[in-house]
Amino acid sequence: MIRGIFAPIPTPFKDDNIDYNALKNNLALWAETPLTGVVVLGSNGEFAYLTQKEKVQLIAFVRENLPDSKQVIAGTGCESTIETIELTRKAADLGCDASLILTPHYYKGAMSDKALKSYFRDVADACETRIMLYNMPRNAGLNLSSDTVISLASHQNIAGIKDSSGNIVQIAEICANTPDDFAVFAGSGSFLLPSLAVGAVGGTLAVANIMPAVCVELMNRFNEGDLTGAKKLQHLLLEPNKAVTAKYGIAGLKAALDIIGYKGGEVRRPMLPAGTEVISEIKQILKRAQVI
Amino acid sequence: MIRGIFAPIPTPFKDDNIDYNALKNNLALWAETPLTGVVVLGSNGEFAYLTQKEKVQLIAFVRENLPDSKQVIAGTGCESTIETIELTRKAADLGCDASLILTPHYYKGAMSDKALKSYFRDVADACETRIMLYNMPRNAGLNLSSDTVISLASHQNIAGIKDSSGNIVQIAEICANTPDDFAVFAGSGSFLLPSLAVGAVGGTLAVANIMPAVCVELMNRFNEGDLTGAKKLQHLLLEPNKAVTAKYGIAGLKAALDIIGYKGGEVRRPMLPAGTEVISEIKQILKRAQVI
Amino acid sequence: MIRGIFAPIPTPFKDDNIDYNALKNNLALWAETPLTGVVVLGSNGEFAYLTQKEKVQLIAFVRENLPDSKQVIAGTGCESTIETIELTRKAADLGCDASLILTPHYYKGAMSDKALKSYFRDVADACETRIMLYNMPRNAGLNLSSDTVISLASHQNIAGIKDSSGNIVQIAEICANTPDDFAVFAGSGSFLLPSLAVGAVGGTLAVANIMPAVCVELMNRFNEGDLTGAKKLQHLLLEPNKAVTAKYGIAGLKAALDIIGYKGGEVRRPMLPAGTEVISEIKQILKRAQVI
Amino acid sequence: MIRGIFAPIPTPFKDDNIDYNALKNNLALWAETPLTGVVVLGSNGEFAYLTQKEKVQLIAFVRENLPDSKQVIAGTGCESTIETIELTRKAADLGCDASLILTPHYYKGAMSDKALKSYFRDVADACETRIMLYNMPRNAGLNLSSDTVISLASHQNIAGIKDSSGNIVQIAEICANTPDDFAVFAGSGSFLLPSLAVGAVGGTLAVANIMPAVCVELMNRFNEGDLTGAKKLQHLLLEPNKAVTAKYGIAGLKAALDIIGYKGGEVRRPMLPAGTEVISEIKQILKRAQVI
Repeated sequence: MIRGIFAPIPTPFKDDNIDYNALKNNLALWAETPLTGVVVLGSNGEFAYLTQKEKVQLIAFVRENLPDSKQVIAGTGCESTIETIELTRKAADLGCDASLILTPHYYKGAMSDKALKSYFRDVADACETRIMLYNMPRNAGLNLSSDTVISLASHQNIAGIKDSSGNIVQIAEICANTPDDFAVFAGSGSFLLPSLAVGAVGGTLAVANIMPAVCVELMNRFNEGDLTGAKKLQHLLLEPNKAVTAKYGIAGLKAALDIIGYKGGEVRRPMLPAGTEVISEIKQILKRAQVI
Repeated sequence: MIRGIFAPIPTPFKDDNIDYNALKNNLALWAETPLTGVVVLGSNGEFAYLTQKEKVQLIAFVRENLPDSKQVIAGTGCESTIETIELTRKAADLGCDASLILTPHYYKGAMSDKALKSYFRDVADACETRIMLYNMPRNAGLNLSSDTVISLASHQNIAGIKDSSGNIVQIAEICANTPDDFAVFAGSGSFLLPSLAVGAVGGTLAVANIMPAVCVELMNRFNEGDLTGAKKLQHLLLEPNKAVTAKYGIAGLKAALDIIGYKGGEVRRPMLPAGTEVISEIKQILKRAQVI
Repeated sequence: MIRGIFAPIPTPFKDDNIDYNALKNNLALWAETPLTGVVVLGSNGEFAYLTQKEKVQLIAFVRENLPDSKQVIAGTGCESTIETIELTRKAADLGCDASLILTPHYYKGAMSDKALKSYFRDVADACETRIMLYNMPRNAGLNLSSDTVISLASHQNIAGIKDSSGNIVQIAEICANTPDDFAVFAGSGSFLLPSLAVGAVGGTLAVANIMPAVCVELMNRFNEGDLTGAKKLQHLLLEPNKAVTAKYGIAGLKAALDIIGYKGGEVRRPMLPAGTEVISEIKQILKRAQVI
Repeated sequence: MIRGIFAPIPTPFKDDNIDYNALKNNLALWAETPLTGVVVLGSNGEFAYLTQKEKVQLIAFVRENLPDSKQVIAGTGCESTIETIELTRKAADLGCDASLILTPHYYKGAMSDKALKSYFRDVADACETRIMLYNMPRNAGLNLSSDTVISLASHQNIAGIKDSSGNIVQIAEICANTPDDFAVFAGSGSFLLPSLAVGAVGGTLAVANIMPAVCVELMNRFNEGDLTGAKKLQHLLLEPNKAVTAKYGIAGLKAALDIIGYKGGEVRRPMLPAGTEVISEIKQILKRAQVI
């Protein structure tokens, strides 16, 4: 069973190319943290701006440059079923521990519960790897309902879900109605503790890129029954989490990495880089959260 | 400080009039439960369908027919500031422990953070009673932001908030940034435990009308550090809670009360009563939740 | 059949009371315009901030202070069926030509198509007057579907609809599938011409308060087949219309009235008055639209 | 200046491959209609399910298999600026008359007006072809504001917009505030006439695939000042238009093509094919609209 805290790592760019040196540097730093592993090609990885060829190279690079003690989950969801199957198989061949598969979403009107179930079952049938469903309504404009997730949980290759909806009732419904070995992950550091309280067993958290130890410590405190301690850490995470997600986005996350000694690198166009005011604001936030 | 579990009681009707006999019967039954108290004229009380005169009568009746050991919170929010002040003062005169005041919302475009702050401060300045803010986006079509709540929390008469948004991050932000004696209440039984986990101290829960003991027990387990027990009860609450809120609404809540020996009474038009199929479905749900 | 251009007049306040002198002054001015009539207690009339008693007084006052040549439509929708019937009957007794009845909306989840149909039929059955349905999703948070409208159009007392949704396809569907004497009105000056193009026969337009002649002229040009002229006037209306609706709201409309020699009066709390910057901006907009 | 009625053609599939024989057949049929041209790789073309290689082949095939008298617009928007530029250049090299470029949208929070302006300017600067902006909120979950469009309209390579929002006020604002040679196109047959009324000069309409003559006739009637005739045709288009867009989607459009003698072909997974009930319903709709 998959469990623990994963960082959905950003992809550093330089002059519109992937900056593998910067990435190597970052992976070495994350390897020294208590993180369970990383997600490559999650939303924070700007996967939507990468070609299929770049995606495969990136997965391979990350797996090769992380010690075996760290797990790697690859984001392999594409719009079409065929492309998703192809990329998921490659990720498995490259040694990834699981694939995180986003709901296809461009044709929202056509993505009924029935279509989504068929999609995930087709992919799970075709790939010998563990699949985590990925629900990301803020980007996809589409919610994966708890009923659909509960139905899919019975497939032997579908091992869990990363739910980034922030809908804690939906997360509770999934926890309450899926087998014990179905792994529910919080999709953001802002609702890690409440997710654990209703039955989640891990998280894939943008803020874990910059505060890995705090995220892991929060989960440990919870598991040890220290609720007051866990609550304090949850409160501490709120502001930096918002800074590197809803407020300043991936550009903000990369700026935060630069500030704490990683190499965030550039974003790819059409995304815009963080301006100096934003960078200065992020510094203040990281100070208040005792990250720097 | 206000804390504990409250039931936002429905208003039973008979031939379009308030059925005070039915209500008296129900109040006697709730008085025997471990509930901290009740909310009269919450959304579940069909306040929007009552005249101002009926509202005052109803508040008086509920206060008189509950023992002093049970607290009464009155829903006194109206669209205009003047009417809200008038009704809030009457509720205080009638002995209510606090007023629950909904965001005015018809003119959504005009209800900026600034307007909402002025509104709540005007009311709190004019009334000598404890005020709980009431955030109910599903009905009001308007969210009371955490920044606005945090700013209002410094007013000495503003004692807390009932947040029915289900936005657990917002609830956490409010808990993290308001004084310790500012009471944050979960607005639905579906997210009671996660709210407690991030710092809430109570709940105003439709499902507490029909499962008061379970709701109180969940909170007790949480306070005693029995997280596994609290989680089981939270999972148990999910289905009956949905049945008496989002799924079948107030008509469903009234049907559930009828089933368990209370007197739900009729709804007022234009609301439609629960049909026989819905009633039968609710019975099944109550059986699965071991209520009957 | 109701047709033509109506102004949904604002209610001037002074120290939280209705300023009848200001209103009388305004009515005398509107009487001299080519408007077909006015709507009293529309959304722009701040009806949500008025007591039932004030509403009846206001309807009576407006009817008495306008010449018989001008029609009066009264906004009489309340949340409960009983109150709506009561107020609609009073408006008919007071000589109004029709009642404009908003969808009840607080309990959004309960306001199914079936509930809304029952509501409007109950009201239409109980009142001997012409009823116009009022669809105002921006404020009500609820849309009255074209299917529901088409079904209701067969009721002999239901004479038309004011659709403020701006959903031009829905307006076209209603025009295409209702009897010829069912009056479809544009609910905003920003989509008057496109509504006429698909079959509307009038409008209830906030901007008609300040530019009555232009609104009427647009409709005349359209009826005469002068599409180029109608289009120019439609383009002219866009900016001032936005200023007195979505952008600056009722406070903006009142400021605009003050600027052009009417008496806008104060707004009622919790609405906030227009600041000096907004007033100055509105002046510029009115200049660009050649109103002043 | 681009003007006229275009059909955004679907891509027929067979066993997950593009069925070029079916497409060739269809192109020959469309060539005989009064359509101005076609859009290849619009939303209806399932572009999101095609690889970059397939996209280029498809553009080439369509251009080669249509007579020069018919214009071809290619949908070339990708998420990243680099990929969009690359594909747009290829489309121009292959002889397309213009490129239709969708708003990038996966990272909605980052796609500010500023980012979108930079994106379209970067693409327009890098490509020697006419660019039509493509606003498709229903699929993209993102609206291209009238202010942004008005600002972009001054770029010499940005020749127009296809607005599928259905927001007729926005369409009017764009028509009112852009140069006369900036082409505004209705993005759906359900609001073609109202768009023409406020200043549009064409349409890219799913329903034009199956009712090309009616769509062209509507525009001709409007241009000749026959408003009553144009209105009748607009009303006629409503139901079949809905059937092949919001109601039954691309699968419905393909089924309709099959019914009228074209070769719709299969949809690509995860999209689901139209079931027999849907096909039978579409037949009834096409009969009522006198298509068959």
